[in-house]
Amino acid sequence: MTQENFFAQRGSIRKYMDQQVPDEVIDRIIRLAAKAPTTGNMQLYSVIVSSSPEEKAALAPLHFNQPATLCSHMLTICADFNRFTRWCEIGNADAGFDNALSFASAMTDAVILAQQICTIAEINGLGTCYLGTVTYNADKIGALLELPKLVVPVACLTIGYPDEPIPETERLPLEAFCHRGKYPRRSDAEIVELYKAKDDYEPNRQYIIENGKDCLAQVFAEVRYPRSMNEQFSASFLSYLRHQNFLK
Amino acid sequence: MTQENFFAQRGSIRKYMDQQVPDEVIDRIIRLAAKAPTTGNMQLYSVIVSSSPEEKAALAPLHFNQPATLCSHMLTICADFNRFTRWCEIGNADAGFDNALSFASAMTDAVILAQQICTIAEINGLGTCYLGTVTYNADKIGALLELPKLVVPVACLTIGYPDEPIPETERLPLEAFCHRGKYPRRSDAEIVELYKAKDDYEPNRQYIIENGKDCLAQVFAEVRYPRSMNEQFSASFLSYLRHQNFLK
Repeated sequence: MTQENFFAQRGSIRKYMDQQVPDEVIDRIIRLAAKAPTTGNMQLYSVIVSSSPEEKAALAPLHFNQPATLCSHMLTICADFNRFTRWCEIGNADAGFDNALSFASAMTDAVILAQQICTIAEINGLGTCYLGTVTYNADKIGALLELPKLVVPVACLTIGYPDEPIPETERLPLEAFCHRGKYPRRSDAEIVELYKAKDDYEPNRQYIIENGKDCLAQVFAEVRYPRSMNEQFSASFLSYLRHQNFLK
Repeated sequence: MTQENFFAQRGSIRKYMDQQVPDEVIDRIIRLAAKAPTTGNMQLYSVIVSSSPEEKAALAPLHFNQPATLCSHMLTICADFNRFTRWCEIGNADAGFDNALSFASAMTDAVILAQQICTIAEINGLGTCYLGTVTYNADKIGALLELPKLVVPVACLTIGYPDEPIPETERLPLEAFCHRGKYPRRSDAEIVELYKAKDDYEPNRQYIIENGKDCLAQVFAEVRYPRSMNEQFSASFLSYLRHQNFLK
């Protein structure tokens, strides 16, 4: 496994040098990434590239001005059945892709493309970071980027020359998330054991103290991703899916 | 770009040798792939590994017995907020992840993992193929694999030793799906032009004739992915999302 070290040591980069990656490099990465698998070879995605200071400044607040927005290129990767539907209509075909299943197919295509872009960019020495906030403000991002019906942003990648070392990434043991044959029924004690290394990880212990909580799970569920916030953004995401004709 | 050729020449493999890949190889690939980005480092996914003849035979009809189901390993990759929610509840935290936004986050994590598995498997000389049918029968697959609430299958990868050459994959030109700054407004003539090479591609021309249609778009919209089928499976997918507590 020649690339084993590369994949084992990768990590997201949130601090970039103040230097633009040439557009040709980004184009070449995206073109290569488009050889990734796609549903029925339909390529149900679009990438909106934001690289000018104005374009990035307009997007940043919609991602809550996360530090990673100070980057060379922001790629907003969209589930897109608009282009394909128009092509079908031009060919006098009844295009029935205004539904949730079609959205799931297009979202899958878009995220596969995003991850292939991420990997190829990293192999080329660039740093990348996903901004999960893309679904929180999908409606506002869609309005800014002038997305038509049947197009919804589902992934945002920031790209730039790294200006920090690759951070260490602790992960759950394989048995936590990989199962043979069927999904296992686990006891509370088993669940606690699977997360023990994460709870004991020194940076996480600091994180618990900083947030004044008893355990890491409370930081996640009550500080970082509280129910009220999730439910508010969930309602606006569903409303936007409906507006974009993906929940008809 | 040392890996340029690899990414440019990849393609999905649907015909595998009748030989099992060692479980240890699959485990190593999945463990490496789990270093891929994940929302807030929550790892909102599970992988169900089906490798015995019985397990694969039970899954195959739920994927309409596609030839690629004759493989070494089938990986059903699930959006999973169950494990994380239980960990939060054990820590006396209010876990508010039973909503569509949380499903979108978990689906993103799952598809990122799937694509990283795909890439690492291919770099190791294995063949892979996604089965898009996973969302069509998500409910039945979920029942078979005994998925609990807040777990939904969103990707299925078949893996095995290739028994066919890597197929050629024609893709749209970059300008079809990659846009600067905003989504473009395009004329019908421009859309037709973007798809022209695809329409003219010799295997696609044969495909149109075989299906008795006038153009490739009609084959897609009326034969492969007809509205009635999309809408039927969309209704069952949404119903299963609700049943799994992701649309509350």
